[in-house]
Amino acid sequence: MTWVEVNAAPELIHTPPLRLKQKSADRTALNTDMYCLLKCSPLILAVAVCHGWLFGDFVGKQKELDEISLWPLPQKFQSSAVAFKLSPGSFQIVHAKQSSAGPSCSILVNAFRRYFEYMFGDLKKHEKSRKKVYDSDLAELQVWITSADPECDGYPSLQADESYELSVDEPSAVLKAANVWGALRGLETFSQLVYRDDYGANNINKTDISDFPRFAHRGILLDSSRHFLPLKVILANLEAMAMNKFNVFHWHIVDDPSFPYMSRTFPDLSQKGAYHPFTHVYTPSDVKMVIEFARMRGIRVIPEFDTPGHTQSWGNGIKNLLTPCYSGSSPSGTFGPVNPILNSSYDFMTQFFKEISTVFPDAYIHLGGDEVDFSCWKSNPDIKKFMVQQGFGTDYSKLESFYIQRLLDIVAATKKGYMVWQEVFDNGVKLKADTQIHVWKERPQYQDEMAKVTAAGFNALLSTPWYLNRISYGQDWVNIYKADPQNFTGTDAQKKLVIGGEACLWGEYVDATNLTPRLWPRASAVAERLWSDKSVTDVGNAYKRLVQHRCRMVKRGIPAEPLFVGHCRQEYMGL
Amino acid sequence: MTWVEVNAAPELIHTPPLRLKQKSADRTALNTDMYCLLKCSPLILAVAVCHGWLFGDFVGKQKELDEISLWPLPQKFQSSAVAFKLSPGSFQIVHAKQSSAGPSCSILVNAFRRYFEYMFGDLKKHEKSRKKVYDSDLAELQVWITSADPECDGYPSLQADESYELSVDEPSAVLKAANVWGALRGLETFSQLVYRDDYGANNINKTDISDFPRFAHRGILLDSSRHFLPLKVILANLEAMAMNKFNVFHWHIVDDPSFPYMSRTFPDLSQKGAYHPFTHVYTPSDVKMVIEFARMRGIRVIPEFDTPGHTQSWGNGIKNLLTPCYSGSSPSGTFGPVNPILNSSYDFMTQFFKEISTVFPDAYIHLGGDEVDFSCWKSNPDIKKFMVQQGFGTDYSKLESFYIQRLLDIVAATKKGYMVWQEVFDNGVKLKADTQIHVWKERPQYQDEMAKVTAAGFNALLSTPWYLNRISYGQDWVNIYKADPQNFTGTDAQKKLVIGGEACLWGEYVDATNLTPRLWPRASAVAERLWSDKSVTDVGNAYKRLVQHRCRMVKRGIPAEPLFVGHCRQEYMGL
Repeated sequence: MTWVEVNAAPELIHTPPLRLKQKSADRTALNTDMYCLLKCSPLILAVAVCHGWLFGDFVGKQKELDEISLWPLPQKFQSSAVAFKLSPGSFQIVHAKQSSAGPSCSILVNAFRRYFEYMFGDLKKHEKSRKKVYDSDLAELQVWITSADPECDGYPSLQADESYELSVDEPSAVLKAANVWGALRGLETFSQLVYRDDYGANNINKTDISDFPRFAHRGILLDSSRHFLPLKVILANLEAMAMNKFNVFHWHIVDDPSFPYMSRTFPDLSQKGAYHPFTHVYTPSDVKMVIEFARMRGIRVIPEFDTPGHTQSWGNGIKNLLTPCYSGSSPSGTFGPVNPILNSSYDFMTQFFKEISTVFPDAYIHLGGDEVDFSCWKSNPDIKKFMVQQGFGTDYSKLESFYIQRLLDIVAATKKGYMVWQEVFDNGVKLKADTQIHVWKERPQYQDEMAKVTAAGFNALLSTPWYLNRISYGQDWVNIYKADPQNFTGTDAQKKLVIGGEACLWGEYVDATNLTPRLWPRASAVAERLWSDKSVTDVGNAYKRLVQHRCRMVKRGIPAEPLFVGHCRQEYMGL
Repeated sequence: MTWVEVNAAPELIHTPPLRLKQKSADRTALNTDMYCLLKCSPLILAVAVCHGWLFGDFVGKQKELDEISLWPLPQKFQSSAVAFKLSPGSFQIVHAKQSSAGPSCSILVNAFRRYFEYMFGDLKKHEKSRKKVYDSDLAELQVWITSADPECDGYPSLQADESYELSVDEPSAVLKAANVWGALRGLETFSQLVYRDDYGANNINKTDISDFPRFAHRGILLDSSRHFLPLKVILANLEAMAMNKFNVFHWHIVDDPSFPYMSRTFPDLSQKGAYHPFTHVYTPSDVKMVIEFARMRGIRVIPEFDTPGHTQSWGNGIKNLLTPCYSGSSPSGTFGPVNPILNSSYDFMTQFFKEISTVFPDAYIHLGGDEVDFSCWKSNPDIKKFMVQQGFGTDYSKLESFYIQRLLDIVAATKKGYMVWQEVFDNGVKLKADTQIHVWKERPQYQDEMAKVTAAGFNALLSTPWYLNRISYGQDWVNIYKADPQNFTGTDAQKKLVIGGEACLWGEYVDATNLTPRLWPRASAVAERLWSDKSVTDVGNAYKRLVQHRCRMVKRGIPAEPLFVGHCRQEYMGL
């Protein structure tokens, strides 16, 4: 056994061992697994990847397979040992002649430049070359948008068609997609196919790919309230999301600790509710930049403005918005959830969500609705009186529903759809048919909750197994990878109501110093689960590809942390 | 309750809760604690800090106390509400007239510049001002080295005197130390005393400090074998170490996975044993730079070359160094620990450690000796024959001791002292009286091991509770902080044999992408335990200071992760 094998070995132990340092004995065991993996992997890949396709002659091409390491794995994939060379001096990404998109399509023009740089580094390093293109060269990638409207100036949506077909053959590769959203996904895949041979030359194998996402909603939640996240960190993570084919940025923008969203209608919200009114806020221009940066990458931005709980920071800027808590017969000076018995609360929400619905172009807003603490409501005599008047008895979840019901009507009037945390559904609030229920609780088991939500006919989104803020020692990506949103007892119709899931990185222990390496490549495990075919579940094969994929992210400037012992050709050069 | 209080609240729960998001109810509880902490903190500080000193009039000066946030807390500390202003345009750090050190003392000159920049930012931003110094200004800090030899050109050592006295009063502050090592610690403390008032002006309170470390050996172990650590990362962490008064960099430079140390005598070790022979190695010049960078900060560099186990990567470059393992009656092609029955092994070690003893100036080398796996030795017929010849029976720990004994003789001949992991002591190897035993195992309990080691008359170092590579969700710094190396049953003489401890960050899951935020500020908890008085154990008070100290590290460019919800005035601006 030499260390080179050790280096590549996946740790196939799912519960992280308690021992402090690796022991040689364990390593020997791992190597036996590894040996098998190396011997069997073309077969594993063939079974996992090819749904009815003939699999190319991969035997003896293990190295290239390793180098390619597509992530997430495409739905249909056929490759051959035939390799073409790409010259950074002459290779071009171009609009196909038949394409409905052209040079005015800024999404594509930006993406061409971005992926060229990912593949070949800084443009300036390569003198434009006029030299002859050889027979074995790949001269260009033609991007062919087939539908009449390429959606160059649109926003991605839940209904976006992200499918694409990619054919790599001499002298040109062709990427075919109905519109820019599929083209973006295909460009990422193309860039992942390019590898360097032993001489440092850029190569790509003859390949055919037909790809589409398994789920339409593949999100990342970042929390900019518990810690303020500088714009730079948000943008870097949007870049990483695109590298993993995520398409939703769920921006948990405000919460109890701080209110960094700068509202035009209610400037006091951030003026008095942010950690600092100038340095720790998102200005309207910042928000626009996030939305545009995300649009360029086919990513939707869904803001969450969570009420009636999680609103401590709102109270600083808006008088009488929160419920005064009582200690005995007098106010204690502290405040609880939004006061649901005052008309002024609903007037405020009407104006506030009117603004939000114009600032954020996505068709959906996340309205929260989780973890409402009843103790303050219970202490307040006016609330108690209202409970009696309404005939709610002592069931405060009825009061919560009363609030949510009115809020949903307010938001529905802005023509937006809404997402809510599962409590809103659990408490029996009347919901529009297209409401998306976001499942996050550990009890009851999420499988039961997914079954219940879909049985009631609602769209469901899963996050429970993907709370990536929770960390433990060792390779926890394996359990993240194994979770499946459709793994519950239900009819096919129920399964179809599962629109996807989100990896959540709550901010109690996370800020700009540690967010990116904590999120990546652990979120990549979620990315593959939500994009690739249901049958793609082989952990050993995933380990090999993910090791390469994280090195690819590192090479592109994302400080994605290592999965285990080993190295990248280009290590992270930041701090 | 407003969010501002929530933001500052320490989570006083020692086992991290399983709930996924903070609940308002818990927050209310926390705030009650917080309220008490705010009310009582001057008292807590007085008890914790002042050993027989009169405590200044701190009542009403809570803000300044918060801002100051010394870390680690000095041994004796007296401050008053009287504040002086510092002008970056005129303030100077100078050699005192009586000082035995002057402008040729590069350690001090470099430190003056470094700490000036930490306090006031880039030098260039401040025009040198000739304006009048006001009565309320602090004009300068005089650094007074009192011993005849300031040790400007020396290396720090186990015996270094790191004590200092600091007096801040108008018109000058005076820092008095026997030599440069104490002066470096005092400069760090001085820089921590400077705070900005509400107008952004630099202030420092009238203060007297008399300070010295509780333990002489306060180390950080970094592992550059499981992942290669670029020089930049090592240097940044040496900077952070100095900010926390650590004085030993234990460089676990090679191990099974890779051999990045470039040896002049045996270039094949890294040529064939590193992840890459050019990009993933430490050249002699790199090693020199690390040692000099550390010297400038009063930090010793102790390299570890662990044998006879943990040596897989050595085998690539040195033929016949490792034991061939057998499968039945024939060699299996894999290798075990260093072959202890060949003279060539000892010839190699003699030459190799001769080089190491000249490259690393410190008086100590760490020789490892941990986790020797006997299975390969047991499989090898030549080893078995040797066991019979030597009368070892089937006790392979006798063979291990046989090897270690000869190795210790080889290293002793280079005039170096040695540190070893506890197994070497546990196995009864005959050791020189000044050998340092490094305790790391969880079983038997480290308290028992510390008692045994010191009862046998050896110096002991603790690492068991400080394996910082092991992570869990929540505020694990609290248990790190509570561990005490002298917390075992033994005589005073035994306690005096405890020379300190080390925080270890093993590299299985750590590289340049995540090392720094994973280490800081968790290692800061170890720093205070090893520097400050034994009585400094108040977790609530530590939380408040550590929150500020980590923001100070962030301001100085170290991406130290947050302890909990909140913000820094200047957030981390890297990625």
